[in-house]
Amino acid sequence: MSDLVYVPARELQRARALPGDPVRTAALFATLCRINTLYMIARAGSGHIGSSFSSLDIVTWLHLHELRGLEGPEAAVRDLFFSSKGHDVPGLYALLIGLGRLPFETLHTLRRLGGLPGHPDVETPGIVANTGPLGMGISKAKGMVRAQRLAGREGRVFVLTGDGELQEGQFWESLATAAHAKMGEITAIVDHNKIQSDTWVSSVSDLGDVVAKVTTFGWHAVRCDGHDLAALAKTLKSLRGVHDRPKLIVADTVKGRGVSFMEHTALGPDEKFYRFHSGAPDDSAYERGAAELVASANTELEAVGAAPLELERVPRPARADLRETQRILVAYSRALVAHAERDPRIVALDADLVLDTGLIPFSERFPDRFVECGIAEQDMVSQAGGLALAGRLPVVHSFACFLTTRANEQIYNNATERRKVVYVGSLAGLLPGGPGHSHQSVRDIAALAGTPGLEMLEPCCESEVAQAVAYCLDEAETSCYLRLVSIPCRVPYRLPEDYRLERGRGVALTEGSDALLIGYGPVMLSEAYRAAGLLRERHGLGLRVINLPWLNLVDGEWLAAQIADVPRLFTLDDHYVSGGQGELIAATLAERGRVPVGGVTRLGVRSIPACGQNDEVLRAHRLDAESLAADLAEAIAGGPLD
Amino acid sequence: MSDLVYVPARELQRARALPGDPVRTAALFATLCRINTLYMIARAGSGHIGSSFSSLDIVTWLHLHELRGLEGPEAAVRDLFFSSKGHDVPGLYALLIGLGRLPFETLHTLRRLGGLPGHPDVETPGIVANTGPLGMGISKAKGMVRAQRLAGREGRVFVLTGDGELQEGQFWESLATAAHAKMGEITAIVDHNKIQSDTWVSSVSDLGDVVAKVTTFGWHAVRCDGHDLAALAKTLKSLRGVHDRPKLIVADTVKGRGVSFMEHTALGPDEKFYRFHSGAPDDSAYERGAAELVASANTELEAVGAAPLELERVPRPARADLRETQRILVAYSRALVAHAERDPRIVALDADLVLDTGLIPFSERFPDRFVECGIAEQDMVSQAGGLALAGRLPVVHSFACFLTTRANEQIYNNATERRKVVYVGSLAGLLPGGPGHSHQSVRDIAALAGTPGLEMLEPCCESEVAQAVAYCLDEAETSCYLRLVSIPCRVPYRLPEDYRLERGRGVALTEGSDALLIGYGPVMLSEAYRAAGLLRERHGLGLRVINLPWLNLVDGEWLAAQIADVPRLFTLDDHYVSGGQGELIAATLAERGRVPVGGVTRLGVRSIPACGQNDEVLRAHRLDAESLAADLAEAIAGGPLD
Repeated sequence: MSDLVYVPARELQRARALPGDPVRTAALFATLCRINTLYMIARAGSGHIGSSFSSLDIVTWLHLHELRGLEGPEAAVRDLFFSSKGHDVPGLYALLIGLGRLPFETLHTLRRLGGLPGHPDVETPGIVANTGPLGMGISKAKGMVRAQRLAGREGRVFVLTGDGELQEGQFWESLATAAHAKMGEITAIVDHNKIQSDTWVSSVSDLGDVVAKVTTFGWHAVRCDGHDLAALAKTLKSLRGVHDRPKLIVADTVKGRGVSFMEHTALGPDEKFYRFHSGAPDDSAYERGAAELVASANTELEAVGAAPLELERVPRPARADLRETQRILVAYSRALVAHAERDPRIVALDADLVLDTGLIPFSERFPDRFVECGIAEQDMVSQAGGLALAGRLPVVHSFACFLTTRANEQIYNNATERRKVVYVGSLAGLLPGGPGHSHQSVRDIAALAGTPGLEMLEPCCESEVAQAVAYCLDEAETSCYLRLVSIPCRVPYRLPEDYRLERGRGVALTEGSDALLIGYGPVMLSEAYRAAGLLRERHGLGLRVINLPWLNLVDGEWLAAQIADVPRLFTLDDHYVSGGQGELIAATLAERGRVPVGGVTRLGVRSIPACGQNDEVLRAHRLDAESLAADLAEAIAGGPLD
Repeated sequence: MSDLVYVPARELQRARALPGDPVRTAALFATLCRINTLYMIARAGSGHIGSSFSSLDIVTWLHLHELRGLEGPEAAVRDLFFSSKGHDVPGLYALLIGLGRLPFETLHTLRRLGGLPGHPDVETPGIVANTGPLGMGISKAKGMVRAQRLAGREGRVFVLTGDGELQEGQFWESLATAAHAKMGEITAIVDHNKIQSDTWVSSVSDLGDVVAKVTTFGWHAVRCDGHDLAALAKTLKSLRGVHDRPKLIVADTVKGRGVSFMEHTALGPDEKFYRFHSGAPDDSAYERGAAELVASANTELEAVGAAPLELERVPRPARADLRETQRILVAYSRALVAHAERDPRIVALDADLVLDTGLIPFSERFPDRFVECGIAEQDMVSQAGGLALAGRLPVVHSFACFLTTRANEQIYNNATERRKVVYVGSLAGLLPGGPGHSHQSVRDIAALAGTPGLEMLEPCCESEVAQAVAYCLDEAETSCYLRLVSIPCRVPYRLPEDYRLERGRGVALTEGSDALLIGYGPVMLSEAYRAAGLLRERHGLGLRVINLPWLNLVDGEWLAAQIADVPRLFTLDDHYVSGGQGELIAATLAERGRVPVGGVTRLGVRSIPACGQNDEVLRAHRLDAESLAADLAEAIAGGPLD
């Protein structure tokens, strides 16, 4: 296990105070922020290096030399900056820490409970908008500008966007009225680092000439090198004179800038996927990367006659042991390919998440039946509708949080055409807890509840995945939503050898007659199973845990039989309680006029999901085994639950 | 009451068979279709004249001279046509009827149950995609093209779009990958009639040079006169040679084309709003319009030596008597202005539905605090987020079906910023039944269920509107969704004089102890109230009807007290049963371990909403007073409900 290094506060101050050319000082400061960004991400175990590094020179320059009224909200003239893509926020945190606008100690808290969230949140000082879902930035900026105008205040808004982000319709939707309202207050800066989540932007959906495009929408657009701070300074200065139109800079940048082997330009001709978009570097990559950045900084310090960096060093935290974990996505990937071998109707669609949705084997095996749609979920879902109308069986993939909400109306529109489409939402549920609430999909069941004919299900382990895929692709007559947990899970239960998925019914994982708990998915069922053990051990209570993989349908007869002998029923949603499976279970029992005397208590997420390590987040929501056991014991003893 | 006239089948056949210049014949045929379109809309009592007329020349020419393989699905080469905007479908119906592709009798069934839906549905012969929600057309076409390519079939796809529709992000989102995949099979035609729903496109959000814009996205784009069929024919012919890129024609058209006073060019310099976008003409406008069209047709017939038209004549159906109806939107409009007088934080945002969301008084009284966003719901909602972050109280308006689903992720993103935003969704619920399922908002409660901190409520009459608005704007600490029925309702109940809206609680409209029914909103409560009368009259049963305006929260204590003395509870949602208020009520009772012995039966919408007249639609879903009374009587007597 290697050590991690970071630049302490005094060294950041020393660098910032160095005399001389502001361009060189800013570049040095950005390099120090890269060292700290790498530290934060390595320590957190996840985060976005590539675009933090590509944007850091721009972000640094803006904060050091362009933004006015940064200190305190009461300045007469206050410029705002935020990143619309949001996932580059570790770089911004490092900078804000370097500038003393965030307490230095927060450097050690990336993606930790109560620390710095994985995507920006306005609860963090210096953060002015919640971003992460792509394409919203300019729209938000327009609202801010309208508010400023109403208040008669001056102030510009700088919005950083990704280049892959320009595939989102909302970006283009937001342009016209900004021009119509002559919002010269807005400057958008495209961090044009050429690589979107998976691979080259140009190979997914070429951006074309962004300057020309945006100009046709009435914007003033220019292009410059996003790492040449002198050029950037000149460009920003020239834009100060443009007041009658919103402005956009296409900043040419290098993804992973600052560490040679992380730079996208180091991708070999045969390498299809970029490896440093998200996720922490391994020990070797960390060590080599940090060493390169430190060497760069020291070279620069030496050139201005300053002493080399004095770094702090801490051990790298141990990483999770992933042996013997259930990998739902891998099982899904395998099952999809197997079905596609037999069923030529199947076409898989993806929205720039092929690395995260298990689609690489499919895309390689069936390149003609694989559609990479780019970051364009609405377009993807409506394309799937067109495919279904023409007799194909489209299987649509994205993160659950984006698929079910960004393309919500499109999914409904497809449903009204009464053709079968299978939607597969990964990264579903409360975990991973690191990315934060924009990515924690805990409202997808509710968001799709009113979709006629849509059946939703979530498998709880690899062996159930295969059956769920078979159900969705082969057996179901209508459209399905397959909800998949992405984190590797060490599940403590095993389904019976002869388990067969049965529509609307579940299967018991533990036995007990003091209470029944119904849930789904590997995350919550694992906690429930462990809680059952604790209840037996500590309180002598028997909790029967049932896996009900059907999220929006339940067999009333079966359900009634399950509760026949228990005085109390708990439901456990990996979702907001509102609109989750538990509500349907409760309503189904209420319909039959018979509920357990102790009532049906719905457990699940009740507030905006906390960001943090997985165990921290479960605990924060009282959904870890310990909290569940304690709360259930109290409830069973007759105490009030909340 | 005037008579309505239509062109019978034999006259359509005669016109189509006229020898001579195909351009003149097509223009004549289009004029006959206009007569029949006007007939259909006048008979239905609603429909979109303006864009049916602006697009009819194009649609006619395509069907007569450009599309291949129209007859039957088995043609070796089959071109497809559909309109992405969808609301121009009366014109397409008239044409398909004229061509014999729809039975002639369907001419009399626009917006009737089992007839021709208000927006396109693939269940209708000749309709190839469900449209109505804007911006999906090119995406759908891409899916169709991919399917054709996979099947090795030839065939082009022609997609008609509106010009206001180009404000939707999905349109732009769909462009890049069509170019990337070299989809020369697609020809998009923009019906550039200059007027969107409310007013001039250019005054909402100027389109700029669409040809230049689309060209920068890699499309081949040209412009031509959409009423000059010779020019259109030439343009279409020239595009046949372009295979390596998708193609787009900006067709300059006149909204309302064919009837002088309906043409947008007849709008006076002081007239802000176009009056023939949707809705039926009054008797005078109908008579003058039909007379003009008939005169045009006869002039053309005479010019080619043919006999004048022989028309069929039928009485115009009586229209609904709107006296003494509750107008929720008018009451809302008044309340909003009153609050804005006192609260300078209030800013109202609209997405091109100012005529339908009651915002004209506000926009005239507070022009600086009114933001017309155009048809750009996602942009609107994120702008509202920006305004809220800057201390304003944004009130966001659109039809419920679009607001809550198109901008679903944006609403959630705003919620995570923990600032107050008020969303107002009109045209909520099952009625009006004429526009069809794209506009019948019966899943908005579910779609927003997982939005933390969002309180949803729906007032049941004008007097409750004022209280609900006061709650949302003044009292609520978090964001609210105000759900408003748009149709004028004759409500048979009256709230008690001293009624005060109380969070989570309701108010009884009738008394009775045989069963309790809880519902909300003027449509369903009116039916329930009438059903209560029928139950008493016919069966001697007492039904207590409670108005519970809170859609996603209920006071458990209060609820428990309401059911204390009734053996059976019904809930009645103006929404899908799944994810509606009834599910929450049932779950709340189940949580307390006590439900009525007869159970909690959830009534509401259970299938894709039927299209038809309001009474037809209620009956089709068994939600009219008669059906409710019959079903409740049977259930109370112990029979199974479904």
